[in-house]
Amino acid sequence: MKTPEAIAAIPMRNVGPIKIAGDVLDEELYVPLATLETPLWPSVRRGALLSRAAAGIQVVVVDACMTRSVVLEGPDAKTILQVVGALESHREALEQVVAGTSRFARLRDWHVQMVGNLLYLRFEMQTGDAAGHNMVTKAADALIAWLLQRYPALAYVSISANFCTDKKVSAVNGILGRGHSVIAELLVSEDLCQKHLRTTPEKIVQLHIKKNLIGTVLAGGLRSANAHFANILLAFYLATGQDAANIVEGSQGMVHAELRESDLYFSVTLPNIIVGTVGSGKQWPFVQENLKALGCVEPREPGQNAKRLAAIIAATVLCGELSLLAAQTNPGELVDSHLRLERIDNAQGQPHG
Amino acid sequence: MKTPEAIAAIPMRNVGPIKIAGDVLDEELYVPLATLETPLWPSVRRGALLSRAAAGIQVVVVDACMTRSVVLEGPDAKTILQVVGALESHREALEQVVAGTSRFARLRDWHVQMVGNLLYLRFEMQTGDAAGHNMVTKAADALIAWLLQRYPALAYVSISANFCTDKKVSAVNGILGRGHSVIAELLVSEDLCQKHLRTTPEKIVQLHIKKNLIGTVLAGGLRSANAHFANILLAFYLATGQDAANIVEGSQGMVHAELRESDLYFSVTLPNIIVGTVGSGKQWPFVQENLKALGCVEPREPGQNAKRLAAIIAATVLCGELSLLAAQTNPGELVDSHLRLERIDNAQGQPHG
Amino acid sequence: MKTPEAIAAIPMRNVGPIKIAGDVLDEELYVPLATLETPLWPSVRRGALLSRAAAGIQVVVVDACMTRSVVLEGPDAKTILQVVGALESHREALEQVVAGTSRFARLRDWHVQMVGNLLYLRFEMQTGDAAGHNMVTKAADALIAWLLQRYPALAYVSISANFCTDKKVSAVNGILGRGHSVIAELLVSEDLCQKHLRTTPEKIVQLHIKKNLIGTVLAGGLRSANAHFANILLAFYLATGQDAANIVEGSQGMVHAELRESDLYFSVTLPNIIVGTVGSGKQWPFVQENLKALGCVEPREPGQNAKRLAAIIAATVLCGELSLLAAQTNPGELVDSHLRLERIDNAQGQPHG
Amino acid sequence: MKTPEAIAAIPMRNVGPIKIAGDVLDEELYVPLATLETPLWPSVRRGALLSRAAAGIQVVVVDACMTRSVVLEGPDAKTILQVVGALESHREALEQVVAGTSRFARLRDWHVQMVGNLLYLRFEMQTGDAAGHNMVTKAADALIAWLLQRYPALAYVSISANFCTDKKVSAVNGILGRGHSVIAELLVSEDLCQKHLRTTPEKIVQLHIKKNLIGTVLAGGLRSANAHFANILLAFYLATGQDAANIVEGSQGMVHAELRESDLYFSVTLPNIIVGTVGSGKQWPFVQENLKALGCVEPREPGQNAKRLAAIIAATVLCGELSLLAAQTNPGELVDSHLRLERIDNAQGQPHG
Repeated sequence: MKTPEAIAAIPMRNVGPIKIAGDVLDEELYVPLATLETPLWPSVRRGALLSRAAAGIQVVVVDACMTRSVVLEGPDAKTILQVVGALESHREALEQVVAGTSRFARLRDWHVQMVGNLLYLRFEMQTGDAAGHNMVTKAADALIAWLLQRYPALAYVSISANFCTDKKVSAVNGILGRGHSVIAELLVSEDLCQKHLRTTPEKIVQLHIKKNLIGTVLAGGLRSANAHFANILLAFYLATGQDAANIVEGSQGMVHAELRESDLYFSVTLPNIIVGTVGSGKQWPFVQENLKALGCVEPREPGQNAKRLAAIIAATVLCGELSLLAAQTNPGELVDSHLRLERIDNAQGQPHG
Repeated sequence: MKTPEAIAAIPMRNVGPIKIAGDVLDEELYVPLATLETPLWPSVRRGALLSRAAAGIQVVVVDACMTRSVVLEGPDAKTILQVVGALESHREALEQVVAGTSRFARLRDWHVQMVGNLLYLRFEMQTGDAAGHNMVTKAADALIAWLLQRYPALAYVSISANFCTDKKVSAVNGILGRGHSVIAELLVSEDLCQKHLRTTPEKIVQLHIKKNLIGTVLAGGLRSANAHFANILLAFYLATGQDAANIVEGSQGMVHAELRESDLYFSVTLPNIIVGTVGSGKQWPFVQENLKALGCVEPREPGQNAKRLAAIIAATVLCGELSLLAAQTNPGELVDSHLRLERIDNAQGQPHG
Repeated sequence: MKTPEAIAAIPMRNVGPIKIAGDVLDEELYVPLATLETPLWPSVRRGALLSRAAAGIQVVVVDACMTRSVVLEGPDAKTILQVVGALESHREALEQVVAGTSRFARLRDWHVQMVGNLLYLRFEMQTGDAAGHNMVTKAADALIAWLLQRYPALAYVSISANFCTDKKVSAVNGILGRGHSVIAELLVSEDLCQKHLRTTPEKIVQLHIKKNLIGTVLAGGLRSANAHFANILLAFYLATGQDAANIVEGSQGMVHAELRESDLYFSVTLPNIIVGTVGSGKQWPFVQENLKALGCVEPREPGQNAKRLAAIIAATVLCGELSLLAAQTNPGELVDSHLRLERIDNAQGQPHG
Repeated sequence: MKTPEAIAAIPMRNVGPIKIAGDVLDEELYVPLATLETPLWPSVRRGALLSRAAAGIQVVVVDACMTRSVVLEGPDAKTILQVVGALESHREALEQVVAGTSRFARLRDWHVQMVGNLLYLRFEMQTGDAAGHNMVTKAADALIAWLLQRYPALAYVSISANFCTDKKVSAVNGILGRGHSVIAELLVSEDLCQKHLRTTPEKIVQLHIKKNLIGTVLAGGLRSANAHFANILLAFYLATGQDAANIVEGSQGMVHAELRESDLYFSVTLPNIIVGTVGSGKQWPFVQENLKALGCVEPREPGQNAKRLAAIIAATVLCGELSLLAAQTNPGELVDSHLRLERIDNAQGQPHG
């Protein structure tokens, strides 16, 4: 058996246009979604239609950084606490170590956890328009070398300590931040809710509480209150060349919905959108094409293209999430539409692969 | 702007062969991995080489089922507790309701959670060779109709209650089961460890404890102790047409490693491999080709092809996980190899897309 | 320095009466609360007053059991899976092993987790009116002996495996059950809400959503949505001789509140009330006195006194929780009342210790 | 039925002496433990004996603070993000607001979480020798008033937002800190291990991994890896007048144990010991007596008495934890000793209540 070179030809469509407003961007645009779960397309499309019928999806980007944690060990807690205490006075040196590893990596801060004689350091960096996985690893490598040289009592344990944390469930990423933290909001009148979603604001709010909040708590969920953020993130990440396994932490986001008089306020909060517009995975033609169509490879300040991309993703997640929740408020609708749409889309959507 | 029909051309390679032993299969085979993170290929390849140098990866499939939870509401807890108490006497009727919705769906059991006047029912089914997302939704739809008709005091809330739970972080999936629960194990002598992994059994064990166990606990992880299960699952899921967002729960698995004299016992436990060999997403040519090459579209009893696929995936995860951990025991190795491999593989791996 | 024999004299008051309704009990009664946080008394008292002004707190006991998990190890997963598979055919023998260790212990079921070659067995038992910590440990000890004798490939690891889990945060206790699972509910009219709680049903519901649900999710909470269940449980546990460290799992319960027309539906769901009316800690005079006053040492079927006690506790938790939430809806009220009450109660409440 | 004034007479003993070393204190002292679980006394006593036979328990206090979170709401995310952005420039004003509410409260920092239009602010303060529950609530009340006056677009939701978090399971307390963060360590030679614990270093380490780490992960635990921290904390908290429901977060700590040649390195890391030596609950005679005997009411800089108390508690937790783990390494020992000790201690320990 030989090792063929081949591709997995994941069906992809541009869906929209979604109307997005806010400081980061203010325009209507199509979003590329690559997925084998083809009912996702009409689901996001319905949300996009609603975004245009309403006043657009407001998006704010709260923060952005990338992190890597390392673990070192010393003889005892006292020794490592002394190192921890001394680090602040070496902030400038540490910043230089990081800056020396890349044109774009900048050390912003670090967080410490101690467990007995083990020292966990979580470095928080800015990485320009790259998602930054490799950039922070390279910087962490240099930081370890610096630390081990300066503090001979310390010994190497691991360049990655799972306190980062990458592609794994955690609370730390939501609390301390990793990737872009983005909020998208939409106000929907009762009429538009009826017309486009075939439901009421009240029903959406109640479903969100009983499913996304209470149901998730019952499931032993962690920092998560949504129906299917992961689906939308995966499709978008694949289409734009991201490290798509980061949907694990991406899935840990929250819907917040409430009645405003008789209207619906609907929001999605995504603390961990880990994306870039340059770097690993961005060289493929379909990726470049999509990033270009999204306006994310323009000459801008470092980080601004990635920020724009993250904002668009959050708006897309809102479209897909609201649409699915609306469907689930009506008994039978999910099953009917899923079966129907899979037939239709599969017929239409046969990719060229 | 029009809506083009297109594909995301994810680079794919067959890696291996991996030597797998056990009751489910006993052979050497290549596995298809579709990923933009191309260093994953040599990483799994190194584990595969080790599997052949050693006595093969032992795999056991512990269990398999698919679940869907619904939420209904009543006037008070007393009323819903009466329904819960009565359900057992209607087991046969409920089984018939499920069997009536599909040739393959079989109701196996259900679990109940009550929150005040809210009733959460998590139905556990067998779904043949399908992953079963749609099958259990359709069955749950019919179960709701039956329940609402029989118990007029109940009202519909949602066909999916997040207590299932699909593509979201949870503890329930690991504790009660969802998808295939699989364990893969490999015994590696100290010599082979040195030769192929450039490290020692002791170093692997220590790294696993300080990174996968302690580091994850610090991160506020949940039912998870691994380095990058998600990466390997994603690549395998994409290559075989799975609903790849299920890597979210797939990522919640555990390594267990220990010294056996001077040898290394290394295992991966994956409680939630959610895969099928038929159904949604399996119709694409590259998927069919891969499933066929893996021997997973043979005429077998319902469920046996999916079981075989799950077993192969667990062995693949072991290869990739062990290889990465080994790299992280050596300072600098991860950064060096990552940078080197990305260059090499990107040069070689240009897909035809 | 000598080792004096002494007591910690925790201030204790009977608070109420609380009006409780339902199948387990239907009466008004005072509850004993031992606490150094004396504002707890008027807080529960306010809820008790409301219970009488309304139609009483409805309580249902959903289930009751006690658990102990053990961990054994084998050479590999295949071996332990065979043991797991065989256990069902030995159910009767296992039941006899358990019954042989106590007049009251009865094996009800068991749950299995495998991690590589490690076997975790969580035994679920009925323990009469005892909380059952020691009873299940003794039974588990005998079960281990039986297992090790029957399956020589297994080896002992631990009589307690943290998968029980006792006095530690977990998801398993809520999902599989441990102790009494109880729900208490109260309907409060808008008028009574205003009169006794100085707030509105709407404000309570909104606070619950934004604090107990969303706030807890943000905190990285786990199967928990309440303000201070732990306070009330601790005071009740101390007063009735319970193993009060079980408030750790007791704290993992949920409020559910909603508007019913203009009225308030308010409920507390406590899946893990771990209490007994006999056994360790129940011999002290103040404990006997309190259990007697609560009507929990009557001649009843085994388990019925403990069930009654658990029901009363849930109603008490409702009183204290609703009262605190009401206070927090009004800016400044919590601080004012806390400071005022601590002064008053400390003056009045000087214990005789 | 009247409301009697009474006490819960919890049996209390001084256990020790424990040998403690380190910068905070370096002496041998008895610790008071109030508990109905009387086998706890000999368990801690065994650890204390070991601390003296070895070189003493090394304790470091890593950090100390108290927190309160509030939740406010605005019309949309953009508005609250502007507030968040502006807060840094008002740091001095916020510090003055806090300082104006108490002689001891000092604002140290704050953390922000946004969910849609909801703003969660977690204020971190120093509170002298008080645990600080009321102090931070009062300060938060004043901060809310300041914020609402300055930013009219904001509205009050709650003085406590569960992102604090008090007496509830969370990840935030461990990650960001709440109360005293303390590490205690003990080196035990193989001989002493055999002599006093009837086990080996290797067995302790293995049990810790398979029970405290893996078992807890299986249980769906959260930031926790220990056997019974809660028991020891409860007994100590009751004896020293603490708000004992804080054992909920106190229970979320970690053991780390490893072999050092043939010796045992054993440590306990407690990130959330929430205690004070002044304030609510400290006025009772038995509390004053115990705090005095512990040397925790001496004239010292604000915070130093509380720090000393926290250090002693961590050493005590180590004693009890190590002793129980040792017992569980031997089949049958836990059951035997528990049953025997309960008989003995109950006979001896009859309190004067």
